[in-house]
Amino acid sequence: MAKVGVIMGSISDWSVMEETCSVLEDLGVDYEKEIISAHRTPEDMFEYAEHARARGLNIIVAGAGGAAHLPGMVASKTTLPVIGVPVESKALNGMDSLLSIAQMPGGVPVATVSIGKAGAKNAGILAAEIIGSFDETVAASLHEYKNQLKEKVEEMRRDLHECD
Amino acid sequence: MAKVGVIMGSISDWSVMEETCSVLEDLGVDYEKEIISAHRTPEDMFEYAEHARARGLNIIVAGAGGAAHLPGMVASKTTLPVIGVPVESKALNGMDSLLSIAQMPGGVPVATVSIGKAGAKNAGILAAEIIGSFDETVAASLHEYKNQLKEKVEEMRRDLHECD
Amino acid sequence: MAKVGVIMGSISDWSVMEETCSVLEDLGVDYEKEIISAHRTPEDMFEYAEHARARGLNIIVAGAGGAAHLPGMVASKTTLPVIGVPVESKALNGMDSLLSIAQMPGGVPVATVSIGKAGAKNAGILAAEIIGSFDETVAASLHEYKNQLKEKVEEMRRDLHECD
Amino acid sequence: MAKVGVIMGSISDWSVMEETCSVLEDLGVDYEKEIISAHRTPEDMFEYAEHARARGLNIIVAGAGGAAHLPGMVASKTTLPVIGVPVESKALNGMDSLLSIAQMPGGVPVATVSIGKAGAKNAGILAAEIIGSFDETVAASLHEYKNQLKEKVEEMRRDLHECD
Amino acid sequence: MAKVGVIMGSISDWSVMEETCSVLEDLGVDYEKEIISAHRTPEDMFEYAEHARARGLNIIVAGAGGAAHLPGMVASKTTLPVIGVPVESKALNGMDSLLSIAQMPGGVPVATVSIGKAGAKNAGILAAEIIGSFDETVAASLHEYKNQLKEKVEEMRRDLHECD
Amino acid sequence: MAKVGVIMGSISDWSVMEETCSVLEDLGVDYEKEIISAHRTPEDMFEYAEHARARGLNIIVAGAGGAAHLPGMVASKTTLPVIGVPVESKALNGMDSLLSIAQMPGGVPVATVSIGKAGAKNAGILAAEIIGSFDETVAASLHEYKNQLKEKVEEMRRDLHECD
Amino acid sequence: MAKVGVIMGSISDWSVMEETCSVLEDLGVDYEKEIISAHRTPEDMFEYAEHARARGLNIIVAGAGGAAHLPGMVASKTTLPVIGVPVESKALNGMDSLLSIAQMPGGVPVATVSIGKAGAKNAGILAAEIIGSFDETVAASLHEYKNQLKEKVEEMRRDLHECD
Amino acid sequence: MAKVGVIMGSISDWSVMEETCSVLEDLGVDYEKEIISAHRTPEDMFEYAEHARARGLNIIVAGAGGAAHLPGMVASKTTLPVIGVPVESKALNGMDSLLSIAQMPGGVPVATVSIGKAGAKNAGILAAEIIGSFDETVAASLHEYKNQLKEKVEEMRRDLHECD
Repeated sequence: MAKVGVIMGSISDWSVMEETCSVLEDLGVDYEKEIISAHRTPEDMFEYAEHARARGLNIIVAGAGGAAHLPGMVASKTTLPVIGVPVESKALNGMDSLLSIAQMPGGVPVATVSIGKAGAKNAGILAAEIIGSFDETVAASLHEYKNQLKEKVEEMRRDLHECD
Repeated sequence: MAKVGVIMGSISDWSVMEETCSVLEDLGVDYEKEIISAHRTPEDMFEYAEHARARGLNIIVAGAGGAAHLPGMVASKTTLPVIGVPVESKALNGMDSLLSIAQMPGGVPVATVSIGKAGAKNAGILAAEIIGSFDETVAASLHEYKNQLKEKVEEMRRDLHECD
Repeated sequence: MAKVGVIMGSISDWSVMEETCSVLEDLGVDYEKEIISAHRTPEDMFEYAEHARARGLNIIVAGAGGAAHLPGMVASKTTLPVIGVPVESKALNGMDSLLSIAQMPGGVPVATVSIGKAGAKNAGILAAEIIGSFDETVAASLHEYKNQLKEKVEEMRRDLHECD
Repeated sequence: MAKVGVIMGSISDWSVMEETCSVLEDLGVDYEKEIISAHRTPEDMFEYAEHARARGLNIIVAGAGGAAHLPGMVASKTTLPVIGVPVESKALNGMDSLLSIAQMPGGVPVATVSIGKAGAKNAGILAAEIIGSFDETVAASLHEYKNQLKEKVEEMRRDLHECD
Repeated sequence: MAKVGVIMGSISDWSVMEETCSVLEDLGVDYEKEIISAHRTPEDMFEYAEHARARGLNIIVAGAGGAAHLPGMVASKTTLPVIGVPVESKALNGMDSLLSIAQMPGGVPVATVSIGKAGAKNAGILAAEIIGSFDETVAASLHEYKNQLKEKVEEMRRDLHECD
Repeated sequence: MAKVGVIMGSISDWSVMEETCSVLEDLGVDYEKEIISAHRTPEDMFEYAEHARARGLNIIVAGAGGAAHLPGMVASKTTLPVIGVPVESKALNGMDSLLSIAQMPGGVPVATVSIGKAGAKNAGILAAEIIGSFDETVAASLHEYKNQLKEKVEEMRRDLHECD
Repeated sequence: MAKVGVIMGSISDWSVMEETCSVLEDLGVDYEKEIISAHRTPEDMFEYAEHARARGLNIIVAGAGGAAHLPGMVASKTTLPVIGVPVESKALNGMDSLLSIAQMPGGVPVATVSIGKAGAKNAGILAAEIIGSFDETVAASLHEYKNQLKEKVEEMRRDLHECD
Repeated sequence: MAKVGVIMGSISDWSVMEETCSVLEDLGVDYEKEIISAHRTPEDMFEYAEHARARGLNIIVAGAGGAAHLPGMVASKTTLPVIGVPVESKALNGMDSLLSIAQMPGGVPVATVSIGKAGAKNAGILAAEIIGSFDETVAASLHEYKNQLKEKVEEMRRDLHECD
């Protein structure tokens, strides 16, 4: 059963948010994905957030750009941890998305990650870390993932010195 | 009967938002005021937005600071014009409020005014202008108000030259 | 007869501002369009603003970029509601346009929308909302428009899950 | 036994970070607190991060200002979820802290909350939400906490209308 | 007869703009001062700008804050050089004023100086430099002024080493 | 004899600064142009600034990008008016150039224009306005130039309505 | 004999720049201090920079605010390493100082430190590190200084846990 | 033996950081280069920083982008001077990199240069200047380099006037 719900405001966010899904698959964490728009389908957003816990989800990852209200509004309707991904916006490069997601008032947190694809990937890893904090199998996957990061640096070193 | 609904996320926004109410009174426009928090009372926010038109409101003015989601979320649930007032935030002086309110995606507009008290006053005048576009009495009040602005400049001129 | 006057400082703003006109057509709201430059044709700007109400306009939408003075100066000469569209500028991506339009002093409001094409579209919808606040036919068009937004999300969902 | 480790770079961050500790107490979540400076005690930081999981911690909350490296560097040494609190900096009001914490590269996430005290409080609530995602007692505390937020709005409403 | 016209949008700008007047007096340049508000007295602004040359003015200095339209709009109505002083704004510290004044479109220049009192003083010196470019007496005053700047540094050096 | 000295830090600034030269030619104002780098040829810069007045120049226009020190340093060595053009920089789009040029301390003004090509053109017009303030022929050229701006708007209007 | 020249544009920068001098004293590094203003005493600045090496200086530390040209212009006239301290400016909190100092073009580096007092202190430490890279005694002082930083953290820890 | 250690977080930074290596070669300064990632190989980073002095390095140049922790963390583990190069980031163009590197707390300096390739080149020159402050041969190379900068300006002047 899905443990992580990955939602986004528009199909145009998918090229960013598939990074979340992809890393969750790599780490062996079940997830579901859906388009939920804060501004176009507010009722669906409320329903999604309200029933997420009962449906067995442990974490919600929400990606949005510009005046990015989806992560914060989902957080207002659930006690599950909500991770917000600031999608790069056209004019302001995601600075508006970052501030709209990160600057939540006291009482209703959103776990904000970095702007764009790197952030979407990190949202998946963070979701796995949350589960892995209580689940040894996922913790082991994360440990392995961290080792792969080190190995990639080793490869880069070989590339750098190749032409020495 | 109230034509303008003035809402804000917290009692701490009142020192800003009373500017809206005060100018509406000066212009002879009926209004109501309420605390509606997007993040703490999302259900009330939806209900307020959903029934605003049926209750006879013509315009909603919403003030909020930081990750300011109230104006945009209200706009997602009504076809009435929504005016957003970016309340000055503690760390970022309202730049986050401004971007969270102004940078709405295509399809769901918020009429954003300037940051803080000047913006709150302007929200009231804008609401009156909207009504006055279809109502001669309010239009006349606005005309008079514009004349008073000119007169205030005349006074300022006398003050400036007093010590010449 | 035109109810909304759509003006812009230069023909180069048209690729943005046609979004306003296009959505007004979709919503069945009459409009006119014109090039009015605050800095090159200030007299025309004053005349346009001064006679707008008498000519039957209910709302003026003004698009401008950089040190964007058109919306604010038009607002200084009329009691009609003025909507300002911050057109994306070359060097600063419209951040200068946004601040030049939104940060109006108390007394003279401009209803600011988001930067660029999304904002131009929203200016049209906002103008329709203002009219629709007093006109049932336009209100019905807006209601229908909101439903179409929901339907588009449904389509996006099908696209997202197509390759599951 | 402590489930949440709350660390900060300097005693001067305590006036902010005590918000985290205070809300964790309210929600019945065990925590420990310590001064760990990324730049002055890098070895302690590494040791803290490395042994956190084995010592039974589930989450690390790290507060830092300016070129805020503590949260990200702790995250590089553990697979536990790390929450970063951007402490308001003297010159740039925490905008540097926010970017230094949020803009982590793909592979090493930090769950960033808002700048200053509101963010510190939210870090505590987020830590509780993470635990509460797997623990019914903490989930119930959070549910109760959300109800209190609603009640506080009710109080504010009474205050607002008191002088009507 | 006055050679420099110093105008500002509000009496509240006087504490800044008196720096302009004060330095013009020191440099022996005749000036006049007036409150001219772009948004409250647009007709007066047009008239002032239109007749400035015929009245014998050589330069107009205009101070304004926030969405600061006064310098640019005056520039649209005269071929005299216009100097714009960005007055510090409440929320954004004059960054909005700076962008609203400096970012003029090609065709209509405004000579922008720094934000606040330093800028207002520099506006006066710049006006004197413009006159001094064609007038030997004012050029001599400026030469003397530059020498005084050097002397002030000498004094500061004595202060710095006093306690050595 | 040249009245305006147009200088820039690098040949790469020429594509921007030729706008200044081009508009000066159109307005019938003599100018000279040179590469003068504040950081690579500081002695030449000092010499240029020091002898500018004696050589008959009335105004210096200086273009520079990034940590743009050329306009301000030239201003420190002459009592002629100095116009600074913020050239668009690679990473920060000219925001660094704008602040480095505009934010001069009290005592040493630089007349700052907008970022990039529009600013370079405006620097030429501003230089002409300064001369035209004392020279009827140049004033007449500027008057004619302003009329051409109006005519261009007329053309744009025809283009806009062509497809009606 | 002095090894580090500490210069600043105005006596008002001394409250910041004394941090540099104080830490140099603590670390046993000889220094001299002087007021050298890029804009008011450009000739002195050139002379200072030109003779610094011959006079036996190894490093120049230059503090300046706003359009901060002192560090970069000194760097243009010497092959010694130049450290720039961005002094906090009135309106923009030192963001302008930081960009004016850091964003130097390729060819002429300035070693930029953080804004304000922390940066001034760091300028002194950095100067010592440069000398200590070739001088064992200063290196030993720096090693000792780093240990003191750790000890201060130990003290802070005791303070934090005092009231447990 | 290498005197300068040039490190970067990823092979993708090499296109920027090769500017550092290239200029060091031109100036006759020995260097080594390596991939050292603060977030992926924190242990390697600590080891590199800890042994740098003993291995004979005089300076470390570290390039990083986004939440750029490499320069500051290396500085926490060595008393050698550390130069930080802010690599341009995808969304925020290196503004985040600049603040993450420059805004170090008092006690642990990083010598920050400009964003991107110009900064990387300047890092190499700055490293040479540090060595050249104690080494006459490198000082002579730098003197020669400065002369070449002047000659390049001469060439540019010929190019500029070619088509006169």
